[in-house]
Amino acid sequence: MKIYDRPGFPNPARIRIVLAQKGLDAKVTFESVDLIGAQHKEDAFLAKNPSGVLPLLELDDGTLIAESTAITEYLDNLDGNPVLTGSTPREKGLIHMMQRRAESELLDAVGIYFHHATPGLGPALQKHKSPQWEHRKQWGERERDRAIRGMCYFDQVLREHPFVAGDNFSMADITVFAGLAFADAAGIQIADELAQLKAWRARVAELPAVKNRSGQDFEAEDLRRMGF
Amino acid sequence: MKIYDRPGFPNPARIRIVLAQKGLDAKVTFESVDLIGAQHKEDAFLAKNPSGVLPLLELDDGTLIAESTAITEYLDNLDGNPVLTGSTPREKGLIHMMQRRAESELLDAVGIYFHHATPGLGPALQKHKSPQWEHRKQWGERERDRAIRGMCYFDQVLREHPFVAGDNFSMADITVFAGLAFADAAGIQIADELAQLKAWRARVAELPAVKNRSGQDFEAEDLRRMGF
Repeated sequence: MKIYDRPGFPNPARIRIVLAQKGLDAKVTFESVDLIGAQHKEDAFLAKNPSGVLPLLELDDGTLIAESTAITEYLDNLDGNPVLTGSTPREKGLIHMMQRRAESELLDAVGIYFHHATPGLGPALQKHKSPQWEHRKQWGERERDRAIRGMCYFDQVLREHPFVAGDNFSMADITVFAGLAFADAAGIQIADELAQLKAWRARVAELPAVKNRSGQDFEAEDLRRMGF
Repeated sequence: MKIYDRPGFPNPARIRIVLAQKGLDAKVTFESVDLIGAQHKEDAFLAKNPSGVLPLLELDDGTLIAESTAITEYLDNLDGNPVLTGSTPREKGLIHMMQRRAESELLDAVGIYFHHATPGLGPALQKHKSPQWEHRKQWGERERDRAIRGMCYFDQVLREHPFVAGDNFSMADITVFAGLAFADAAGIQIADELAQLKAWRARVAELPAVKNRSGQDFEAEDLRRMGF
């Protein structure tokens, strides 16, 4: 199978962690899609994923699976032993609830802020956005505030359980972890008082699948284009 | 178990169809939450679901599961025979991909249009919205256009498969079906040329779980308040 993604970026990172957790790295080939050059908004990629986002999984029979939750469901269930999406109905329910909250209250909120209220990834992507800059900026700033509230919410959740959806590490932890990395990149800080969130983040960063995943570093070309 | 919802509204309808499909109606009690009166934005409900949306599932041990996808995962897996969320990894991946698209490209897009670019459910909910009416309206209209494109996308999908995620009826069909009902209510029409989407809709409307579900009709009080 093949993954279309781009090293270093937040949504690709989610699936790289899933692959490491499931021991599937060696069974996947990666095709790098130029996010900064808006290659994911070109017809060739849109034919594979009309939503125009990464990552995307292509199976050997040509089946295309987009959306991180969907890709995770596929990969996690391949060996009949799901460890990231829940095994009981209650676990599945709670993990999917927290996965959705991790997206809407943190990761996607940061993404809207970054892409709409800041210069984002630069000029190639700008033409794919709505032209009313002032409105986009206000929308982005509203989502930044949502992400800041989201961090407070997850800090509270982590006072009650060691992981985002309960006692075990799940895809919801991966999404919050990627959301915080994206927040760093977008200049949204974690408030000092969110001690549980920070302690959880330090613990998750040391998990083997997180620490040893492939594709953590940006490509040299992207670092240059982002001004590093 | 208990479901907090409101008869007649689109997201509650999704779970009512799931319950009927799984034969679980008799195992559930329903508690009606006054959406038009913004009861779901009051502290008592927010303590149960901080996202402030319906439906919400409360298990007998007090566990709370929000978000329609998460509730569906729970209910569909209770009997060990999932029929709406997929049984193979490939089915799970494709169904979750299409579920997410059905939300972002149709149901949620219609919801943003209805609540932000029209008077929506009226004054009680207005105070929970961002004050820049002009921007909200433009945002809502952008999402209306997304929903219209989403209808075209699903029409194309249904030229290739009998159901939204392939050969079998799944939760993604339920979400598109609820999205079209919401579009009707919001005054967004299905274009005449979308013959596949219309034919699929007529077929789905006749499925026993869809046709015979409980809670299809609005409460009399809500009809009055909505001006019918």
